[in-house]
Amino acid sequence: MIKIVLDCYGGDHSPEANIDGALAALEQLQDLQLVLSGDEAALRKLLEGRQYDASRVEFLHAPQVIGCDEKPTDVIRLKRESSMIKAVRLLRDDDSAAAMVSTGSTGALVAAALTRIGRLRGVIRPAFCPILPTVNGGLVGVCDSGANVEVTPEHLRQFAIMASLYMENVYGVKNPRVALLNVGKEAEKGDELRQTAYKLLSETAELNFVGNMESRDLLSGNYDVVVCDGFSGNVLIKATEGTAVELLKKLKKDIYSSWVYKLGAAIMAKMFKEEKDFFNYQNYGGSVLLGTSKVVVKGHGSSKARAVQKCIEQAYRMQASELNSKMEEIICKYEHYEA
Amino acid sequence: MIKIVLDCYGGDHSPEANIDGALAALEQLQDLQLVLSGDEAALRKLLEGRQYDASRVEFLHAPQVIGCDEKPTDVIRLKRESSMIKAVRLLRDDDSAAAMVSTGSTGALVAAALTRIGRLRGVIRPAFCPILPTVNGGLVGVCDSGANVEVTPEHLRQFAIMASLYMENVYGVKNPRVALLNVGKEAEKGDELRQTAYKLLSETAELNFVGNMESRDLLSGNYDVVVCDGFSGNVLIKATEGTAVELLKKLKKDIYSSWVYKLGAAIMAKMFKEEKDFFNYQNYGGSVLLGTSKVVVKGHGSSKARAVQKCIEQAYRMQASELNSKMEEIICKYEHYEA
Repeated sequence: MIKIVLDCYGGDHSPEANIDGALAALEQLQDLQLVLSGDEAALRKLLEGRQYDASRVEFLHAPQVIGCDEKPTDVIRLKRESSMIKAVRLLRDDDSAAAMVSTGSTGALVAAALTRIGRLRGVIRPAFCPILPTVNGGLVGVCDSGANVEVTPEHLRQFAIMASLYMENVYGVKNPRVALLNVGKEAEKGDELRQTAYKLLSETAELNFVGNMESRDLLSGNYDVVVCDGFSGNVLIKATEGTAVELLKKLKKDIYSSWVYKLGAAIMAKMFKEEKDFFNYQNYGGSVLLGTSKVVVKGHGSSKARAVQKCIEQAYRMQASELNSKMEEIICKYEHYEA
Repeated sequence: MIKIVLDCYGGDHSPEANIDGALAALEQLQDLQLVLSGDEAALRKLLEGRQYDASRVEFLHAPQVIGCDEKPTDVIRLKRESSMIKAVRLLRDDDSAAAMVSTGSTGALVAAALTRIGRLRGVIRPAFCPILPTVNGGLVGVCDSGANVEVTPEHLRQFAIMASLYMENVYGVKNPRVALLNVGKEAEKGDELRQTAYKLLSETAELNFVGNMESRDLLSGNYDVVVCDGFSGNVLIKATEGTAVELLKKLKKDIYSSWVYKLGAAIMAKMFKEEKDFFNYQNYGGSVLLGTSKVVVKGHGSSKARAVQKCIEQAYRMQASELNSKMEEIICKYEHYEA
């Protein structure tokens, strides 16, 4: 059994989407055990009349909910009875609990995870690693995408090691091609951080480092992992996602401007639906926080049932593949670099 | 007369595209004078039999060409007879020359412009400001997009002032809405650089500062100027451009996978052409270098005639609107902040 704690509140479609996602995951993964964190009476009510294996579901009653505009530090201090903080505490205290999934406030989750759950041995800074689809049908992980706005070259090497193992163990990518996000391809490009990181990544035997990547090539399929500081990683992810969304919106608007185009679009309806699904990042799960001592997955605030299910599946696969102990092993080899 | 020096070599389609662009610009702007820099015999040959006002064209013979993989510092030192370096020198030495346009190596152009042409009074660091189209038909300028990978809050304020005046004077945007690129909208988001810059931008009376912008909103039409360090600005621009290109490529590939889709696409051919044009950044001109004492415009290396023409038009409008003296006036008000 793999036991995962699901924070059922905090998302735009919570708790309904979280419960629907939970039931789909239970159906799909036969040795999954779920702890549902939130208002127990409300959650039980949502489950009434639903088909599921009740022996694999527990409840963690938590009456408080965290608003998305609350300060992370306030949340930890003042919202001790919230679904997120209770989930984090259970993950810390219950040895049988392997992972947690939340669609709530990112800042609060990072703060709670770092202070309550702690880091893997040797890890200096845990980092977010969301996954994006590439145009040739593959996936690319971007690490870090926002947990650390300021980093050192050694942080970047750790992000590379963690994300590379993640892509290999959870997505079956053999010998992942790791790139460093930079303003040009040549080794000497960028600031001192990038130049030193380039050298460090080249020297790390466990990595298949393929050099610098410019942001325009993120979706090209030529890279499996992109390493960056959390600021530019955040810019990269959101610019890519935002452009796809705006472009598809513009296409739709332009189609509706003419009945001829509407006719053409009707013929192509299936294709447009597929394009929309392809660029819908919900279909690829959440952003995992790599480097915490237990698995933490952050789903998008707008997650619907399918996205919640994907997040649970990610957490499950991270645990099943023993990713954390593999990370620890390699990270500790280079631990003497830590300041 | 406004005299502009055009570097006719260094681009992927040089010198043909540069000459075609030059002739189109001469046709369009009646008081434009052009100096064509490059191999004079070759350029004269390209002009043979073409219709144009020869009284408004001069030649600057320059036998050397700069490769795109040459080190900028080597170029300045060793390629003194190249079309780019000779153009820069002429711009410096000829009081009647107002601006230059080049589609050659960015690094070499920046290095040459900074060392040979110098900065406007009060400007600490010149910065690139490319223009992108927004989904509601407007334009947005991104400053800096790569000239300065490391910046201070005061640099960011100068970028904001320069880019705001640029959008107002060259594109007629009234009271441009200026945003700071950040990882979230709230004032306290980001690192110390962003937090201090936020405060500084808020306090600058000449700016219509509207707060932080996340990269996903670049094309939304809610902003006219986005201010950022050159590293994240470069990531932003290339991710936005790259995603649009990859998405349109994917659409095309998917259309060709089925004859039904091909039929639908045939009906919509005009629309797809328009979308492609919309997201073709060549149609919006080059990336101007704001803050040099004379106007410098950098066209994309892949510029065709239309893009070269647009770049010349940008340089012309910058000069015609007396942008540089307007910039200097406001920048100097805050000069005492300079370290």
